[in-house]
Amino acid sequence: MLKKPILFTPGPTPIPPEVSLAEAAPMIHHRTPEFSRIIAELKNDLKYLFQTQEGEVYTFSSSGTGAMEACIANLLTKKSKALVILGGKFGERWAELCEAFGVETVTINVEYGKVVKPEAVEAALKKDRDIKVVFAAQCETSTGVLHDIEAIASITKRYSILLAVDAITGVGIHPLLMDTWGVDVAVTGSQKGCMIPPGLALVAVRPTAWQAIEKADLPRFYWDLRKMRDALKKDTTPFTPAISLVRALKVAVDMIKKEGLENVWQRHAHMAYATREGVKALGLELYAQSPCNILTAVKVPKGLDGEAFIKRLKNDYGIWFAEGQEEMKGKIFRIAHVGYMNDFDILTAISAVERGLYEAGYPVEIGKGVATAQKCLLKSEIPKEAKKKPVPAPL
Amino acid sequence: MLKKPILFTPGPTPIPPEVSLAEAAPMIHHRTPEFSRIIAELKNDLKYLFQTQEGEVYTFSSSGTGAMEACIANLLTKKSKALVILGGKFGERWAELCEAFGVETVTINVEYGKVVKPEAVEAALKKDRDIKVVFAAQCETSTGVLHDIEAIASITKRYSILLAVDAITGVGIHPLLMDTWGVDVAVTGSQKGCMIPPGLALVAVRPTAWQAIEKADLPRFYWDLRKMRDALKKDTTPFTPAISLVRALKVAVDMIKKEGLENVWQRHAHMAYATREGVKALGLELYAQSPCNILTAVKVPKGLDGEAFIKRLKNDYGIWFAEGQEEMKGKIFRIAHVGYMNDFDILTAISAVERGLYEAGYPVEIGKGVATAQKCLLKSEIPKEAKKKPVPAPL
Repeated sequence: MLKKPILFTPGPTPIPPEVSLAEAAPMIHHRTPEFSRIIAELKNDLKYLFQTQEGEVYTFSSSGTGAMEACIANLLTKKSKALVILGGKFGERWAELCEAFGVETVTINVEYGKVVKPEAVEAALKKDRDIKVVFAAQCETSTGVLHDIEAIASITKRYSILLAVDAITGVGIHPLLMDTWGVDVAVTGSQKGCMIPPGLALVAVRPTAWQAIEKADLPRFYWDLRKMRDALKKDTTPFTPAISLVRALKVAVDMIKKEGLENVWQRHAHMAYATREGVKALGLELYAQSPCNILTAVKVPKGLDGEAFIKRLKNDYGIWFAEGQEEMKGKIFRIAHVGYMNDFDILTAISAVERGLYEAGYPVEIGKGVATAQKCLLKSEIPKEAKKKPVPAPL
Repeated sequence: MLKKPILFTPGPTPIPPEVSLAEAAPMIHHRTPEFSRIIAELKNDLKYLFQTQEGEVYTFSSSGTGAMEACIANLLTKKSKALVILGGKFGERWAELCEAFGVETVTINVEYGKVVKPEAVEAALKKDRDIKVVFAAQCETSTGVLHDIEAIASITKRYSILLAVDAITGVGIHPLLMDTWGVDVAVTGSQKGCMIPPGLALVAVRPTAWQAIEKADLPRFYWDLRKMRDALKKDTTPFTPAISLVRALKVAVDMIKKEGLENVWQRHAHMAYATREGVKALGLELYAQSPCNILTAVKVPKGLDGEAFIKRLKNDYGIWFAEGQEEMKGKIFRIAHVGYMNDFDILTAISAVERGLYEAGYPVEIGKGVATAQKCLLKSEIPKEAKKKPVPAPL
C-alpha cells in the first residue's frame, strides 16, 4: 500500500495546503501597513474563535505552555492563592507553573480519565476564601476528558473568582463561549483547532481580568499582557512576531470563518461520535468518562501490545495515532480527529484500527468498525453537544 | 519598473526559497525518530554557528527577546547584581528585563552610535564586586555599532564574572568565538544571520554558566534551561517545538555549513564595507563609530526628508530600508546586508539610495555610489575583521 501519512495526533494536526503555502509566501516586514492589516483583521477573527466581543486575543510566539505561563505571570501576585483542577498532564502543568512562580495552590485531584465535579470546585472556593484564580483545562488531552467549563464558570462568576482555561485543545473544536459563560481568560496553541504548525499561542482576555493583570507583581516581560494590549491597539506586536505563522493563521481562520464556527464544532462532534462508536463496535473500551471531541482515548485491550500496534500503523501505513503519555503509556492509545479532517478521515482511522488489530492477531470482526462509523457519520442524529449555538460572530 | 521586493531590514531578512519550501513541507510529529534526527543534527550545527564545542545550544519558540529573558531568568538570583552595557534599544532591553525581574543593575551609559570602552567595563567590575553577570550586545542593531565582545570577554574571564551576549544580529554575521573568547552565554534570533522567518530563538550555554543556572532562584518554567538541557540530551524539546521553523532552520544552517562560516563572515564584511564606501561616496555620513556588518546606519543629511525617502523606495520600488527607532527616527536610516545576500544585492541597495536621493531632488552624482561599491566588491583587499579565522567546526 502506498504510504500517505495522516496525523491523527492531538497537535501537530494536518495542515491545509493553502496554509502551508501562506507560510512559504515571500517574507514581509512586520512594521508595515501590510502586516498591520493582517493583525487588525485577525483581531476580530480571533475574538470570534474565542466567542468574545468584550475581550481581546493576544498572539505570542511560543508553544501553548508559554500562553499558560502568561496567565500565571499576569493574573497573580506573590501572595495570592490559586485553585488548580488536576486530572491529567495538562491540569498538572498549571500546578507546575504555579510552583515555578512560587504561587500557593489548592488542588482538586481528579482521577485520570474522570471528569471534575463542579461541586468540588464550589466546595474548594467556599472552604478557602483566599483563592484568587481557578485554573482548569477544557479538554484534558492526555486522557481525552472534556471538563464542563460552562458549569465551572457559573461557579467562579458567582464567587467573583477569575477563571483561566487551558482551551489549547478546545478552541476551534468545542464550544467555548467566553462572554456567555463568563470565562475570564482562555488560551490555545496554533497546532490544534487552528490547523497551523506549532509556534503561536493565543491568550484571550476579557475585561474582567484586567484589574488582576494591572495588580500582578510577578516578574513578566515577554509575557506581559500590558505590552501586548498597548501594541495591539496600534495593530502591532511588542516584539518581532513569527510572521510566517501569523500569516498562516490568517488563512486558517478564514477557512474556519467560511465553514462557520458552529459547523466546525458540529463536525468535530460528529467525527468524535463516529470514532467512539466505531472503536466500541470492535470490542474496545473508551478511557474517558466524558470524552472530548478532539481525540478518542482507547484502552489497550488485554492481549495486545499497544506500543507495537501504534508503531506498526505508523511505519507500515503512515497512520499516526498518539500513545498514552508517561504513566498512561502502553495503557491507552489516542486517535485525534481535529482540524483539517472530515468523515472520510474517520473511516481511515477506524479502518487502520481494524487493520492493526487484525495484523496483530487480535480477534476482530473485519468491517464492523468501519460499518458502524459509516452509519454514525450518515445518521442525521446530531450528538447533543453539537447542537449548542454560538453567540453571533463579532464584527 | 517591475517591483521586486528586497528586505534590506535587519530582520526579517530575505529567506532562501529552499528554506521557505522546507517550512511548507508536509507536517510531521515532533515525538518521532524523524524529528529527533533533525534535533540531533542541529545540535552540532548550532554549536558550529556559536563556535562552541564545550557548550550546547537550546532552541526556544519565541522572538529573540524571549532568549534574552531566558538569560535573566536562568543566570541570576533575587539578590544578585548585573552590569548592563547600554548604548541603544537592545542594550536597554537587557536593563528593562533586569528591572522586570527585580534584579539590581549597574549600567554603563554609552552614547548612541558610540562603542563601549572595555576599560569602562573593567572599571565597573573593579568598583562593584557584587556584580555577577555582564549583559552586552554584540551588534547594537538600533545604531549599527559593533561592540568588541572579545575584549569584554577577556575582562569578564579575568574577574570570573559571567558574560551573556545578545548576539541576535551577530551570529552568522560576525565572528563570535564563544569557546576561544570565553563568552558564557550568547543568544540569537532566527530571522537574522540564520536566514529563516522569525519565531525561533537560540540560547548557547557554555559549561561555565551552569553553576549559576543551577543556583538561580527567579521564577522560570518555559525558559528553564534545565528542562531544555534534559530534553536535548534525548534529542527532543520540553514543549512542542515550532516544527516547521525548526526544519527551515536545518536547511538554512546546512547552507551556512556548505558555504563555511568563515566565508559567511567574510561575505558580510565585504558587503558591509562596500555599502559603507558606496554611501560615503554619495556624500552621506555614517552614524556608527565602529560599524557592524549586519547593517549600515546612515545619517539623514540636511535637506532630505528621511521618512519620505524610505517610504518612496518601499512603495515605488519594493526596496525596504529600515528607519531609525524611536528617538533616532528621521535622523538615520539603516541598510541591512544580512543573510541570503550577495554582492549584486549591495549594488541594488546603493543604486536605490542614489535613485531615492536623485528623485528627492537631493544633489547626487549619479553612478558614483554604485561605481564605488563595485570597486570595493571587486577589490581583493579584505577588510581586517573578515580575516579572523574561526576555530575548527565541531563534529
